[in-house]
Amino acid sequence: MQRHFDEALEQLKQKLLRMSSLVEQSIGSSIKALMDRNAELAYKVIKADDAVNMLEIEIDELCLKLLALHQPTAGDLRFITSTMKINNDLERIGDLAVNIGQRTLDLIKVPPLKLKINIPKMATAAQAMLKDSLNAFVNKDSKLAYEVCKRDDEVDDLNHEIFMELLSCKPEDLTPVERVIDLVLVAKNLERVADHSTNICEDIIYMVDGKVIKHHITD
Amino acid sequence: MQRHFDEALEQLKQKLLRMSSLVEQSIGSSIKALMDRNAELAYKVIKADDAVNMLEIEIDELCLKLLALHQPTAGDLRFITSTMKINNDLERIGDLAVNIGQRTLDLIKVPPLKLKINIPKMATAAQAMLKDSLNAFVNKDSKLAYEVCKRDDEVDDLNHEIFMELLSCKPEDLTPVERVIDLVLVAKNLERVADHSTNICEDIIYMVDGKVIKHHITD
Repeated sequence: MQRHFDEALEQLKQKLLRMSSLVEQSIGSSIKALMDRNAELAYKVIKADDAVNMLEIEIDELCLKLLALHQPTAGDLRFITSTMKINNDLERIGDLAVNIGQRTLDLIKVPPLKLKINIPKMATAAQAMLKDSLNAFVNKDSKLAYEVCKRDDEVDDLNHEIFMELLSCKPEDLTPVERVIDLVLVAKNLERVADHSTNICEDIIYMVDGKVIKHHITD
Repeated sequence: MQRHFDEALEQLKQKLLRMSSLVEQSIGSSIKALMDRNAELAYKVIKADDAVNMLEIEIDELCLKLLALHQPTAGDLRFITSTMKINNDLERIGDLAVNIGQRTLDLIKVPPLKLKINIPKMATAAQAMLKDSLNAFVNKDSKLAYEVCKRDDEVDDLNHEIFMELLSCKPEDLTPVERVIDLVLVAKNLERVADHSTNICEDIIYMVDGKVIKHHITD
């Protein structure tokens, strides 16, 4: 029974790693599609979300099965419930990649904005947070997870900067207005990638150290 | 032990109902603040989120405690894991109310847009979905939960309509551009309230019928 359970836990971990890798790839491709104005890649990102959604359900069902059949306690229980939460955050990051893909398809229809908007810097920061949160998961590294949580403020600041840059557009740059709106929404999506990465790190800290740091509350 | 467990489950249900009621109130007030251009109410919504965040942690900890101490199976296990998920969705709806409050504070600083934008209709539809999802939870009514899931498309359509209305703004209405952007973001927030209500209903259907309907997959 114990060996069977250990194997199932390992299988769960592998599935979550596969999920992480799919989602990381989606976010990376969505940003590349946006930067390169590449419609084909944007469509690919949108289509790839089906696999993420299927895998989310698979992971969720495996967690419930393990909870029901093995009634785990302590560290194993924390690992399974944290996996359920991380899985949910990853699925939502997948949705954000789809949104960026959709915004990209809209933006390609209009000429690029001449104003230099620092979306690439924000994208790099958000992607790095996601990548490090997954590294923290693989290595059960709560120190790295803490560090990622702290970086959320930087991404929020970059989002604010982009917002202010867009607001300072010259009147002739405001039409078509969807260009400005789409860029605001892309920045908002990237900010949410950072938020979900922070959530993942909070779950890792709980999983590894048993500490709740959500909403900056420590106990 | 069983009586103690039943009491704890009832306590968990009451806490989740309290959470629902706080969040429903926040969304209602945020929309009222937006419509009435009421800064005081918007600030109140932003401040009220602390209580929601605290309660989220409390509920989450109670769920984990129940899983660890009582090792529930079948219906009780589904109730607890669904409560964890619903709790998370409610907390995020609370965050959306805060966002609408912040957008309201921005919008109050500029004269209202003359164009008639159908935010109230969308707000009513999203609020009704939230309300019904909570009713479905209280009454374990999976039929109502299904019906709420179906209404998500209506809210998505309303979001699209508002987006198109805003894009058709006359050039003189485009400045200040934050007015248009803030309204897009409010509509986006309302769309996400509907999404989270749909998630809650999917969890209720799983809790009551044991069926997974996420991403329109039935098994």
